[in-house]
Amino acid sequence: MNAFDELYLSLAIKCAHQAIGLSSPNPRVGCVLVNDGGVLGQGFTQAAGQAHAEVMAIREAQSAGHDLAGCTVYVTLEPCSHFGRTPPCVDALLAIQPKRIVVALVDANPLVAGKGIANLRVAGVQVDVIPSESQWAQAAFDLNIGFISRMSQSKVFTRLKWASSADGKTALPDGRSQWITGAVARADGHLFRARADVLVTGIGTVLHDNPQLNVRGTAVAHPPIKCVVDSFTRTPVSARLFEDGAPVWLANLALDANDAAYLEQKAREQILCAAHPHLKILSLPKAGRRVDLKALWQYFYDQHINEVHVEAGAQLNAAVLKLDLVDEVLMYIAPRVVGDGKNAVAFAKDECLDDLMKESAWKWSDCQLLDSDARLRLRRKR
Amino acid sequence: MNAFDELYLSLAIKCAHQAIGLSSPNPRVGCVLVNDGGVLGQGFTQAAGQAHAEVMAIREAQSAGHDLAGCTVYVTLEPCSHFGRTPPCVDALLAIQPKRIVVALVDANPLVAGKGIANLRVAGVQVDVIPSESQWAQAAFDLNIGFISRMSQSKVFTRLKWASSADGKTALPDGRSQWITGAVARADGHLFRARADVLVTGIGTVLHDNPQLNVRGTAVAHPPIKCVVDSFTRTPVSARLFEDGAPVWLANLALDANDAAYLEQKAREQILCAAHPHLKILSLPKAGRRVDLKALWQYFYDQHINEVHVEAGAQLNAAVLKLDLVDEVLMYIAPRVVGDGKNAVAFAKDECLDDLMKESAWKWSDCQLLDSDARLRLRRKR
Repeated sequence: MNAFDELYLSLAIKCAHQAIGLSSPNPRVGCVLVNDGGVLGQGFTQAAGQAHAEVMAIREAQSAGHDLAGCTVYVTLEPCSHFGRTPPCVDALLAIQPKRIVVALVDANPLVAGKGIANLRVAGVQVDVIPSESQWAQAAFDLNIGFISRMSQSKVFTRLKWASSADGKTALPDGRSQWITGAVARADGHLFRARADVLVTGIGTVLHDNPQLNVRGTAVAHPPIKCVVDSFTRTPVSARLFEDGAPVWLANLALDANDAAYLEQKAREQILCAAHPHLKILSLPKAGRRVDLKALWQYFYDQHINEVHVEAGAQLNAAVLKLDLVDEVLMYIAPRVVGDGKNAVAFAKDECLDDLMKESAWKWSDCQLLDSDARLRLRRKR
Repeated sequence: MNAFDELYLSLAIKCAHQAIGLSSPNPRVGCVLVNDGGVLGQGFTQAAGQAHAEVMAIREAQSAGHDLAGCTVYVTLEPCSHFGRTPPCVDALLAIQPKRIVVALVDANPLVAGKGIANLRVAGVQVDVIPSESQWAQAAFDLNIGFISRMSQSKVFTRLKWASSADGKTALPDGRSQWITGAVARADGHLFRARADVLVTGIGTVLHDNPQLNVRGTAVAHPPIKCVVDSFTRTPVSARLFEDGAPVWLANLALDANDAAYLEQKAREQILCAAHPHLKILSLPKAGRRVDLKALWQYFYDQHINEVHVEAGAQLNAAVLKLDLVDEVLMYIAPRVVGDGKNAVAFAKDECLDDLMKESAWKWSDCQLLDSDARLRLRRKR
């Protein structure tokens, strides 16, 4: 690793960032081609079924008339070696006869997982994989944490976001909570929403806060799906989350035809679906009185969802934490001390999630100040 | 400011740190004397009535036989210009005929406040005061935040420490909470205790946790006074906080001789005082049913206390916050999500301290990870 490597890896990571909101379920990858004269071409993964980062970079360089033989390739993820919806990037790279390929991260996809690198080396190309503890490897990992989770652990990656006061309060007695953090923290929260394939909330939040549940302040080609956990189909036709036309999934209970509530539920579903063609009803089995959240998360996985982002109230937060569905807690903490005002809630009442006597299942991954607020992230130890 | 200035200022700050637990109520000051050959002498403020940092550094240099004429003096606080219990440091400095004096911070003491620097300049010495936003000025400020508060705002500086889970819980249903954070965070907490002149807790904590309430893991020449807010004189004779012989203040209610509880209180006081010669009873007026905390804090001020450190339970935390007695909240956050288990308390029930609609009275001063835990500090905007 020399100073050029660091410079071009940073540029490749920047390219990879542009695939947020676009490439899912494919990973977010950036690629930069350089020779002694500087950058010849750069690219990032396009929408699924379209060109990968390497091919985009090659196309850009070739359309500018550059000779690519002997160039160096910087790519944030191991090039693919298999035929998916597109031909293998390894072949495209070999065709340009590069001298050296620098890879930030080995692909977790079992179809690739080292095979891409091996194929390139067999063909006589020097391949350098940078150390996994380097900032670029970490950045490539973080950008694709959902993809990696799905590939190597066969599960989606779930981030639960909350904003609270210094003493852990998320709401006041009358439920006011929306503006507890400042503008910079809220904008940062939207950048995390943009990374998600699905934004999950509960019916309580829909009924009380009527959120838009979308990404604001940053452009995304494919906005995240909005998913409402709404066991008894109480989402109003006029809910604001329908307004921007992004896909909505409503997870309710699959009722038996002889259930007393069956007909009413069907009627509600029909009204909702008629008004909102972008709405899909996910009828799910029961767990206790409500929707089986494990079944919902299984559905996410089956739909090739990489990252799930939960912004919900006390009830759903406690439920997903209890079921061990959460991989990261993204916390914004406002510089306020609220006190135990009547009903100031953070979690569902009487939920005891940790007895403090065992080693914590979590570790802090980072903390920083964002203007007036603090941001901390908890990660599950896995 | 050149690289030498930065080096020697860092050394002077290190010296000043050695005055923690020693110099109160005098400020924590470090002084380093240098010439082209390097360090000639260094010193820090001794116990009240004894030598200041400048005099200690001069003595060290002179006893090593160094010629001090033309030297440069680095001192973390403006040298004093008045006769207190010791003669003015300005005179001692002028006597050695330095070429230049670098000062990290102007003294907030109205008896000094620029006069020390002015006197030195009148005598022909070059005095450079470093910018107040530099790390050394900040370090000198933080080390003396209590002294500065007492001098410039006529009040003690109060730090309230709590340790909680990520969701703001400080205890479990059965009261277990002591080990919520890890060893590194706890050691860091003791470094803050060491800075305090008084450690305050409530009778609830004494009865339930029976703490030693002292500084462990770092040496202090003068251990902080332990103060128990104990309106009804319930502190047991066998409380562990008496064990190490450090001074204890017990703040109870000043009862009238015809109060029904008067005789019993006197008996309790006699038993406690007979067993513990280092105990002092502070009989204070009533506010509501309990001790008037404002009167207690006024007493602290009258006793030339600089820094007060509160480690208490839900009741006392809420009370001192409500009375606006707290200048800094020192928070340690463990990587745990506890949930709203029955009675998991952070603050006294039904205390609403912030309506979220006004601008916060607080700002974050810093946040960092300490091994497995996170540490954040809130400061009052003043």
